[in-house]
Amino acid sequence: MSSALLTDHYELTMVDAARHSGRASRRSVFEVFARRLPSGRRYGVVAGTQRLIDEIEKFHFGDEELAFLSDNSVVGEDTLNWLADYRFSGTIRGYREGEIYFPHSPILQVEGTFEEACLVETLVLSVLNHDTAIASAASRMVQSAGGRPLIEMGSRRTSEHAAWAAARAAYLVGFSHTSNLEAGRRFGIPTLGTAAHAFTLLHDSEEEAFRAQIATLGSDTTLLVDTFDVERAVERAISVAGPNLGAVRIDSGDLPVVVRQVREQLDRLGATSTRIVVTNDLDEYTIAALQASPVDAYGVGTSVVTGSGHPAAGLVYKLVSRQDDSGQQVSVSKTSVGKANPGGQKKAVRVIKDGIAQYEQVMTGETLHPDITESRELLVDYMSNGERLEHDTSLSAAREHHLHAIAELPPHAFRLADGEPAIETVIN
Amino acid sequence: MSSALLTDHYELTMVDAARHSGRASRRSVFEVFARRLPSGRRYGVVAGTQRLIDEIEKFHFGDEELAFLSDNSVVGEDTLNWLADYRFSGTIRGYREGEIYFPHSPILQVEGTFEEACLVETLVLSVLNHDTAIASAASRMVQSAGGRPLIEMGSRRTSEHAAWAAARAAYLVGFSHTSNLEAGRRFGIPTLGTAAHAFTLLHDSEEEAFRAQIATLGSDTTLLVDTFDVERAVERAISVAGPNLGAVRIDSGDLPVVVRQVREQLDRLGATSTRIVVTNDLDEYTIAALQASPVDAYGVGTSVVTGSGHPAAGLVYKLVSRQDDSGQQVSVSKTSVGKANPGGQKKAVRVIKDGIAQYEQVMTGETLHPDITESRELLVDYMSNGERLEHDTSLSAAREHHLHAIAELPPHAFRLADGEPAIETVIN
Repeated sequence: MSSALLTDHYELTMVDAARHSGRASRRSVFEVFARRLPSGRRYGVVAGTQRLIDEIEKFHFGDEELAFLSDNSVVGEDTLNWLADYRFSGTIRGYREGEIYFPHSPILQVEGTFEEACLVETLVLSVLNHDTAIASAASRMVQSAGGRPLIEMGSRRTSEHAAWAAARAAYLVGFSHTSNLEAGRRFGIPTLGTAAHAFTLLHDSEEEAFRAQIATLGSDTTLLVDTFDVERAVERAISVAGPNLGAVRIDSGDLPVVVRQVREQLDRLGATSTRIVVTNDLDEYTIAALQASPVDAYGVGTSVVTGSGHPAAGLVYKLVSRQDDSGQQVSVSKTSVGKANPGGQKKAVRVIKDGIAQYEQVMTGETLHPDITESRELLVDYMSNGERLEHDTSLSAAREHHLHAIAELPPHAFRLADGEPAIETVIN
Repeated sequence: MSSALLTDHYELTMVDAARHSGRASRRSVFEVFARRLPSGRRYGVVAGTQRLIDEIEKFHFGDEELAFLSDNSVVGEDTLNWLADYRFSGTIRGYREGEIYFPHSPILQVEGTFEEACLVETLVLSVLNHDTAIASAASRMVQSAGGRPLIEMGSRRTSEHAAWAAARAAYLVGFSHTSNLEAGRRFGIPTLGTAAHAFTLLHDSEEEAFRAQIATLGSDTTLLVDTFDVERAVERAISVAGPNLGAVRIDSGDLPVVVRQVREQLDRLGATSTRIVVTNDLDEYTIAALQASPVDAYGVGTSVVTGSGHPAAGLVYKLVSRQDDSGQQVSVSKTSVGKANPGGQKKAVRVIKDGIAQYEQVMTGETLHPDITESRELLVDYMSNGERLEHDTSLSAAREHHLHAIAELPPHAFRLADGEPAIETVIN
């Protein structure tokens, strides 16, 4: 499917009008940034960029799309002809996937003619606002879980095609598995899952259900033990599977209490290696509250796929520079109340001291302050003249990079309580 | 694209294990319901069902999907063969799209063999949880706007494929337009949009930008007047377009104040029919606060596509009835703490008195209380034995139905303040 109509009507009318005024071919730079982090958050995590580049490569107008635009008089004949040949031929730079960002970090720069760069605005923002919101929330959950594995299982709580994108974003920041099969097929993310309450209720008894599951999936499977009575179910699970049962899953109740009881019961029954998986509307806060409990893995649904209260990252796409009549690039910016932003194409570095991030420096000029001895360039090239660049675009590279970037943050970045961004953004 | 992998791993392993235990062909009824409305909400609105039926019709496993399941050992050979021929052959009933729902309203019933009905769980919930969340939030905005038109323009604040689904859900409950072109192409929803700040900044002056837009889109267009200075922009807009300019759009500032000033200025300039469109992070509350201001249309973005604080409707899919060995249907339900639900297949009516809804009656038995003289059946047939039924499935029918259903609600249903569901659900 073409991605060309996954966009707003006004992108097309702007192109149409700019072609009329003769300004459409002015070389332009758009930047993606957030004016602020979601309320109280200490850091955000960039995600979705490689997925976006895939979509931009598919962004062309076929007969069906052109017919729609023509039938509905969205644009005129001249623009229709131009759209028929449209291929993005510009340059895209941005923060790596898995990189940390702060207010005004220029996480993506799209450079090209006004018309070609304007046209992809909606798609750029849809992909990045969604995936970045999920990754930012998921990263906090990973930090809360302190090394315990996290399984993304929120497909049912987000739209069917957002689900696999959400699974990717969660995996990118350290979730270990997803329940979503499409995410497995597309991205090679390990998938996982065993049974729901319906499976137990289908059978004439819980014991019959447990036997059926073990006969099919082996004794290393995870049995769901809270359909009727947890204590009796755990006893039954071990009696059916033996002490080498892989795991039990608990999806209800007062988890700190239940988890401890189940652990003690499993140990009494000799099932000392049987793991406990919990899955009941968890988020970064409830995960933190369970860290003192003997939980072996967390399954997270609604809160991760909906960005834990912040389902969109608030990223905007702003024209910061464009050619004038003489061919020079000039900085531009609006001055609306509360929505002003610095014009001009930015550079960005993270200033580091003794391995710890000190601040984010966003510059329209060329040079760092001479006192700065250690800093890390944040912008890398994704596309050049319409060609995708061949650096390591794998998900595993992004996971690695996230580990590296997060290790540079000061300790207060990981406080769950609402606060200010972990480091300041200095714009000059 | 097949929708078959838009699902959770465990749906497949449950089917696999149930086939081993010989219980997979037991006739089963699953019901979709919400245990509660989102915190403080007075009513919810069902949406997505026709979209879901489309997806269920495309739910079959091609070579690529089967190869993925086989390569990853998700299910065994016997189940793979069964999946290769899978077509949903059961029966689906549910609330109409646009219908109001309350806690425990059985908004969808899926009846078939366990295996065929289990398999679609994730897809059912993804579509309904998303679209219903959007429609429920959007309906409150429509009520707040009291007849003023609402334009959905949130595509950039949700994932690229959720965007067109969100546009559909918003339109279903009374939004007048969307910015999303894909929603226009798929569903015939009227699309709309003119220009962003970038269009003004591309040009050498605001006046040049306004002239370009009017030359291309005509003087009935909407000019964006807050790039630099609203008062000067309005003066410029009318001087360029004349007093018949279609509209001005304001996207920043203290809207009640700015809107009134702009209205006075437009009137002074003779542009008494020029409309004012506002678009600055609006939601049902800020819309209500602008009702005393001379706004002509609202553009709503983030809050509508993210369900205004509640991006997922909290709907669950529960097995409530299945055959036993003798072929009889038996009611089933789990008893987990805080998550118990009544078993048995339900009927549902809305009890009405003098045209006003009194309560929602959800029954496992056959008969209404004899005192009830007026009630409305809530469940209609969508699919029978795998065949889609030919009632009016158009979006316009759903819009009509929503108007009808909402007209039955008592006045306190429309209070924006947090409260209890507008009517009680009686379960018997």
